Amino acid sequence: MSLTGYPPQDLLLRKDFLIKVEVFKKKIINLTKKKNTIFALSIPLLKNDVIVNALLLIQSGEIIYSIQKKILPNYGVFDEKRYFSSIKDKTQYFNYKNKKIEFLICEDMWTNDFIHKKKIKLDLIIVINASPFEIGKFKLRKSHASKRAKYFNSSLVYVNLVGSQDDLIFDGGSFVMNQLGKVVIQEKFFEESEMSFIYDSKIKKRQIMKFNKYENLYRALMLGLKNYMFKNDFRLAHLGLSGGVDSALTLAILADTIDSKNIYSFYLPSKYSSNDSKKDAEMLSNNLGIKTSEISIEILRNTILKQLNPIFKNYKEDVTEENIQSRLRGLILMALSNKLNSLLITTGNKSELAVGYSTLYGDMCGGYSLLKDVYKTDVFELCRWRNKNVLNDFKVKRNNIIPEKILTKEPSAELKYDQKDSDFLPPYDILDKILAYLIDENRDIKFIMKKGFAKNDVIKIWKMIKSSEFKRYQSAIGPKVSKMSLSQDRRFPITNRFDL
Amino acid sequence: MSLTGYPPQDLLLRKDFLIKVEVFKKKIINLTKKKNTIFALSIPLLKNDVIVNALLLIQSGEIIYSIQKKILPNYGVFDEKRYFSSIKDKTQYFNYKNKKIEFLICEDMWTNDFIHKKKIKLDLIIVINASPFEIGKFKLRKSHASKRAKYFNSSLVYVNLVGSQDDLIFDGGSFVMNQLGKVVIQEKFFEESEMSFIYDSKIKKRQIMKFNKYENLYRALMLGLKNYMFKNDFRLAHLGLSGGVDSALTLAILADTIDSKNIYSFYLPSKYSSNDSKKDAEMLSNNLGIKTSEISIEILRNTILKQLNPIFKNYKEDVTEENIQSRLRGLILMALSNKLNSLLITTGNKSELAVGYSTLYGDMCGGYSLLKDVYKTDVFELCRWRNKNVLNDFKVKRNNIIPEKILTKEPSAELKYDQKDSDFLPPYDILDKILAYLIDENRDIKFIMKKGFAKNDVIKIWKMIKSSEFKRYQSAIGPKVSKMSLSQDRRFPITNRFDL
Repeated sequence: MSLTGYPPQDLLLRKDFLIKVEVFKKKIINLTKKKNTIFALSIPLLKNDVIVNALLLIQSGEIIYSIQKKILPNYGVFDEKRYFSSIKDKTQYFNYKNKKIEFLICEDMWTNDFIHKKKIKLDLIIVINASPFEIGKFKLRKSHASKRAKYFNSSLVYVNLVGSQDDLIFDGGSFVMNQLGKVVIQEKFFEESEMSFIYDSKIKKRQIMKFNKYENLYRALMLGLKNYMFKNDFRLAHLGLSGGVDSALTLAILADTIDSKNIYSFYLPSKYSSNDSKKDAEMLSNNLGIKTSEISIEILRNTILKQLNPIFKNYKEDVTEENIQSRLRGLILMALSNKLNSLLITTGNKSELAVGYSTLYGDMCGGYSLLKDVYKTDVFELCRWRNKNVLNDFKVKRNNIIPEKILTKEPSAELKYDQKDSDFLPPYDILDKILAYLIDENRDIKFIMKKGFAKNDVIKIWKMIKSSEFKRYQSAIGPKVSKMSLSQDRRFPITNRFDL
Repeated sequence: MSLTGYPPQDLLLRKDFLIKVEVFKKKIINLTKKKNTIFALSIPLLKNDVIVNALLLIQSGEIIYSIQKKILPNYGVFDEKRYFSSIKDKTQYFNYKNKKIEFLICEDMWTNDFIHKKKIKLDLIIVINASPFEIGKFKLRKSHASKRAKYFNSSLVYVNLVGSQDDLIFDGGSFVMNQLGKVVIQEKFFEESEMSFIYDSKIKKRQIMKFNKYENLYRALMLGLKNYMFKNDFRLAHLGLSGGVDSALTLAILADTIDSKNIYSFYLPSKYSSNDSKKDAEMLSNNLGIKTSEISIEILRNTILKQLNPIFKNYKEDVTEENIQSRLRGLILMALSNKLNSLLITTGNKSELAVGYSTLYGDMCGGYSLLKDVYKTDVFELCRWRNKNVLNDFKVKRNNIIPEKILTKEPSAELKYDQKDSDFLPPYDILDKILAYLIDENRDIKFIMKKGFAKNDVIKIWKMIKSSEFKRYQSAIGPKVSKMSLSQDRRFPITNRFDL
């Protein structure tokens, strides 16, 4: 889908979209006239009233070879059977200068069906991919590639998209593998790169960089943010800074990704905000070289409570008063978004969103939810990693940017006095593990109890997950970085009476 | 899926869910012991590591016959290939007392593949369905059923679910058809009903009621609302009343569906609200017997503008100031939702939502978006229909409930002086037709221009549709009543550079 972007979703169901693809296909074919280089073009094609995901090899103004994607993923974030058909394809290998070359499109490599194929010797396998980033997925890619390379005693070139589309991040990291299934050339992750190599059975192994989980995660979030802003015409971004760890990490990533002059940050205290929070927020902004403006919500909070008093006086104080503060902040930040034409980045993390520990139309306001797929414990780890590391492409060139106090104080929403997240939630190290079992792995209660967690905790958390489904339904888009993000990966009904 | 509800979505991917289904399957089988009646049970079944959508016939403690759904819809709102496998099923017809009976599950009937089958004589075709309601769909159902009945020279029983799950409404309307493809028994729509009939080749045609598009639509919305509230444990509902037609219709449907003592209505004026709006809102509440409380947003609006003045004074007045009003109303209505434990019904219509003529976190606030799939022109028609009609199951027993002035005045959001929707949008009769072509039918610009619409209007509207995708992404759930609702029916990327 190099011409259309991936995934084009229901654009594929529009005839005018497919016609436009056809127009550009012809233009590209024309451009190859009088050229000898083979151009590989991957596009959706209308064939006998169905759409196929095709790869065309074009040379000297002619399509000299074509294949179609055979395996259409329809799980996780993928809905390919909604759009594409896979026709039983008896295409022979592409023969080029007496070499046998097999082309595969993405998911075609993620199957073991080849073991039923005749074990012939191939010279080269080329896999083209728009493979969404997930922590830990690169290992899987290599493992699938390696099995195939060894089975066919063939070199393998794995080419992956770099960039992002809505919630999906494509991390690049294209590689060349030898017949023994070992990576011999490894291209860059999270940035475009060009490579040429001479095909040779004696390809020498070049140096391969080491990976760190949090480095990858940090860079993935940067890439997702950058692409979303650029492709949706946002030059400016802003957020509400609370003095807590989520907004601290969000601002750090923002500051590493775009020019500081294009970032606004706002501190919006009420009478419940602690002095420490203010100091922590200030220190962070100073470290990042970003000005933080203060707009108090206290007068507004009082005015609203006065206005609602005729009704509210008959009821006890409850979560309503807390949500009002959060929603006032959302209102102000959205007014700033409108006025400054700036993208509001919402700072909630995956743990909060999973259990509904966030206010709809309050702290959930925003056009992009940067940490949507990052559990709270990983938010802390990312901060610690960033404090120790500065990479070449970071705009902020110093380390220790996130004040230690932000990382060590007890998390609190500061919506009433002496409030702590732990009044309401199990400790995050326990919560996140249970969430990973319940959400990322869809495990049952027996399994989770066997891992040493309390039955009551698991049941309580499942109920919170269920009863906050309506909030997630209305949550902002944010980058997928795990194997189970809280977006199209996970499709649960709001109306759900299933108990563990 | 009579045991699980439909669609269970990703619950199907949980092993504990499937195990629970198995437990209840066994309980039901036990209940049939010592009974001669055949019980038809439709459930998901795990078979060789894949899930099938199965129908079991159970008698005297034994499964005496079973089939599986063959055609798995993966378009529109359906994602069945995400969950189910369809195994090539060579099941014979069910033979009962020397009669040949064929069972089909929902989509199995919506295909013409039978014309490749041997044209044998069947005695009865039984189709079990959870077929989502859409305006005009009943005709299609009958047409598919009729073709099959005639081909196999067989009677046909079409059984459809009644109720609602999240955004899908199931309208019932089960029927019996004779061998000539004519409906001879027609059961009720939008309510449960029980029927018994003696199978006889000379079934006499019973009286069949007539349908009216707006009656169906009105009752569908009532059913969706009622089910959503009941299944999600809401006894109370409330809304913001503006004096406009959308909130008027929403309140009318609410008042016809649930007890008036469980409905709250709020009028939230600013200095831009006209006296007429107030009068119209009052007259409407009186007609419906619902008390409307007034909470002015004017002081709040001034306080916020004062608070933001240090920043805003450097910018021109723009849509920001309008959105602030809408968001203050949202904030108050959500505070009331929290405090009263009441479901906020958001009142926006499909035309607004399609072009983004609504404020995210403002008038879009709410847990259920009743008119989400109803174009503005249909909102007017529904009001006119309701003014003339009172059905048995309406809680409000009078007609002419919506003041004529609400139906004749020019639509306005009243967010500044002398504002009219038509300042910003083409007239609704033109807008809605263009939207229906662009959204419901995915037509290209040439086609729409041939229908007599101006090129500039079409291009402008397409741009508005595209640039408001992010708002719809965060919009509340609401009932699907057309063939293309703005929810899972239509999956467009937010990041979208496709121009017409």
